[in-house]
Amino acid sequence: MSIQRKRVSPVKIVLSESQMPRQWYNLAADFRTPLLPPLGPDGKPVTPEMMSAIFPMNLIEQEMTSDRWVDIPDEILQILYRWRPSPLHRALALEELLDTPARIYYKNESVSPAGSHKLNTAIAQAYYNKIAGTKNITTETGAGQWGSALSYACTAMGLTCKVYMVKVSFEQKPFRKMLMQTWGGTCIASPSNLTNAGRAVLEKDPNCPGSLAIAISEAVEEAVADKTGKTKYALGSVLNHVMLHQTIIGQETKKQLELAGEKQADVVIACAGGGSNLAGLTFPFCKDKIEGDNIEIIAVEPESCPTLTRGPFAYDIGDMSGMTPLLPMYTLGHEFIPDPIHAGGLRYHGMAPLVSKAVADKLIEPRSIGQEECFDAAIKFARSEGIVPAPESSHALAMAMREAVKAKEEGKEKVIVFGLSGHGLLDLVGYDKYLSGNIKDHEPSPEQLARSLDCIKNFPKP
Amino acid sequence: MSIQRKRVSPVKIVLSESQMPRQWYNLAADFRTPLLPPLGPDGKPVTPEMMSAIFPMNLIEQEMTSDRWVDIPDEILQILYRWRPSPLHRALALEELLDTPARIYYKNESVSPAGSHKLNTAIAQAYYNKIAGTKNITTETGAGQWGSALSYACTAMGLTCKVYMVKVSFEQKPFRKMLMQTWGGTCIASPSNLTNAGRAVLEKDPNCPGSLAIAISEAVEEAVADKTGKTKYALGSVLNHVMLHQTIIGQETKKQLELAGEKQADVVIACAGGGSNLAGLTFPFCKDKIEGDNIEIIAVEPESCPTLTRGPFAYDIGDMSGMTPLLPMYTLGHEFIPDPIHAGGLRYHGMAPLVSKAVADKLIEPRSIGQEECFDAAIKFARSEGIVPAPESSHALAMAMREAVKAKEEGKEKVIVFGLSGHGLLDLVGYDKYLSGNIKDHEPSPEQLARSLDCIKNFPKP
Repeated sequence: MSIQRKRVSPVKIVLSESQMPRQWYNLAADFRTPLLPPLGPDGKPVTPEMMSAIFPMNLIEQEMTSDRWVDIPDEILQILYRWRPSPLHRALALEELLDTPARIYYKNESVSPAGSHKLNTAIAQAYYNKIAGTKNITTETGAGQWGSALSYACTAMGLTCKVYMVKVSFEQKPFRKMLMQTWGGTCIASPSNLTNAGRAVLEKDPNCPGSLAIAISEAVEEAVADKTGKTKYALGSVLNHVMLHQTIIGQETKKQLELAGEKQADVVIACAGGGSNLAGLTFPFCKDKIEGDNIEIIAVEPESCPTLTRGPFAYDIGDMSGMTPLLPMYTLGHEFIPDPIHAGGLRYHGMAPLVSKAVADKLIEPRSIGQEECFDAAIKFARSEGIVPAPESSHALAMAMREAVKAKEEGKEKVIVFGLSGHGLLDLVGYDKYLSGNIKDHEPSPEQLARSLDCIKNFPKP
Repeated sequence: MSIQRKRVSPVKIVLSESQMPRQWYNLAADFRTPLLPPLGPDGKPVTPEMMSAIFPMNLIEQEMTSDRWVDIPDEILQILYRWRPSPLHRALALEELLDTPARIYYKNESVSPAGSHKLNTAIAQAYYNKIAGTKNITTETGAGQWGSALSYACTAMGLTCKVYMVKVSFEQKPFRKMLMQTWGGTCIASPSNLTNAGRAVLEKDPNCPGSLAIAISEAVEEAVADKTGKTKYALGSVLNHVMLHQTIIGQETKKQLELAGEKQADVVIACAGGGSNLAGLTFPFCKDKIEGDNIEIIAVEPESCPTLTRGPFAYDIGDMSGMTPLLPMYTLGHEFIPDPIHAGGLRYHGMAPLVSKAVADKLIEPRSIGQEECFDAAIKFARSEGIVPAPESSHALAMAMREAVKAKEEGKEKVIVFGLSGHGLLDLVGYDKYLSGNIKDHEPSPEQLARSLDCIKNFPKP
């Protein structure tokens, strides 16, 4: 007995350029208690001056601002217009498949030229660097999503971009490297011979496969080494200003739900790695929740990297080697090495401080999910709605499907919204492995988690 | 001295679901002289009955209709709405780069889940097969665009899909195969052991790399062999009903230009392989041209496969082995083997009869362009507008850039529209080769072209 589906609005809800948000939303302004500051190696709060060696002052101001709304400069909007506002889709085919009374919507960030939400902050960071006089940006990348997005953003703003890509990914994922080069970026396998950090590693182990920690060290070293101040470093997640730049996603979604005739969302779901995709979709809904709306907001992480669900809230460094300040966040310890799951963007030991606080304050509920369930959901989605989701996005999707099944069991007409942060057209090897039965889940044992927290036991406590 | 760019409309012109065309346009109804019929091996016009072994009767009726407008069934619209209407973009960044007074627009078909225009007809063909009682569809694919689009379309309509993929592509382009499987299609390397045609080839040469001709033979054989009539064959280009299904592209474009405040397009440009992308964008403009509008409509083909610019208008078979009827078209001869350029979708010896007639009637002007110029244009486009174009689409882009430079030389404020038929995210190997200097052009010599026409000398003449 199939449910008669309400079809009151278009299946793809589009906004015009004039309906694009003109300000970013800063959740820090609405917390009931203040966000804890990042700390330097001496245990004292980091000052803007300390950060100015690697970031331009205008981004440092954004990092520290307590303003609720921050204007989006017109030059940034002009570029975002090329693919934004992004569509919100009603997942009618998926609803039918699940035979659920829930109405499922997904916000589609896969329409950006880079195929994910990462461009939203890449464009903003390249712009602020440009007006601050930066000529070159360095960064690191793991799977390559961030490095490719920043390559295009830098080219669009007339800057050079050098990306240190973890060597094992550089070799295994040649398409991301090609994409960076097509957009004018320079992609270097890390460890490299170009920096002291890289040379030191190669001296000990010429065949070292690299790590995100080494790549960060190389990128930061190159920025710091340029004493003219014309070379800066950029990060694709974790920091406050990165969360800020992504909040256009949730603001657009709220407008689109209104146009779809929905009074409010009941459940809002996004995957969380460093936190920027989650922040982008959910922070504007967190604001409504603070103001009294009854919304369930869910952060989904992989079972193999359960930062929010099994880690403590503590001070930890953002990388593995201490180039970053101590950040107040949920963490598995910076020495935690998650399983090499296909959702490379979710393999991070920590979590953005803003997201961590939203979780600690019970605005956002964290849940974890296994890789096999995610691939199963992704295949069902691809075969019904058409789009092949990124493995990261499939975590949000799988949780949305669980919620839709729950709504059926409860007989409730819930409105479920999830973030499709990107497409999986450059991740098809993972799909191939899943379809041929070669995907396995590995949850860390309690002992492994306890051991990996050893490395933070001497850090200050929040 | 930079030109002050008129910016009267959004950079991305979107249409709502309610503005989606409700009918396909059939250019055959507006030709001044009738289209010549396809001929059987006996030289007599092919009858619907002869085609019914491989196509359902409702599609055969569409193939032969002279109606000007054909209603689009609601069930097809409901699926097209998932990504349609597709956006029309004003290429402001490209205009600035070229410092041209021309206003350049591009119709973006890359937003479909399959990444190209192919889904428009795949969905329609799967639908008509479904209501005719078909359960299984077979097809062939070269580079894999068509096979992947049809895989999703069949799944969306509850049909099975079996794709015979040319073995050399099957091995060199594993991502397209993975995409088909993700969407539930079955992808078989051709020649295979599943058909008489395949077995015969393998017996002679077990290491045969395959060809489109062999793959067609295998797919058609499997459809014909199912005497229940439940297995049919589908083709992604060339035929009249395929052209018909793509005409929503141009109809949308005309509405979007109107919304952008443009009275008319001066130049409309699309690439042409089998002809369906070109037909989709340009046939609605051909109608305006027949009614007196002054529009330059340009078909762009590769110099290495110059069907329209250097081939005769003649009767030739559509494949290489005579499984199809004789079609009245421009052709290089069905034995012509073009260079293995990266724009695999443009490597076809013939051209759709509807497109061929439009060229013969001087509604459309054919031009050819080299691969290096196309990659150079594609890199410039990726670095300005952001989207990485498919190698096929870069032919239209490169020609649009030539026209924009010409407009500057003439000091004319022309409106130039080109079709971005798809993105190149699964074609990055071509970009990599170009950036490392490993792309060369090879035009066929006059002697080669003359030789390859030998094979059609005994066919009837149009």
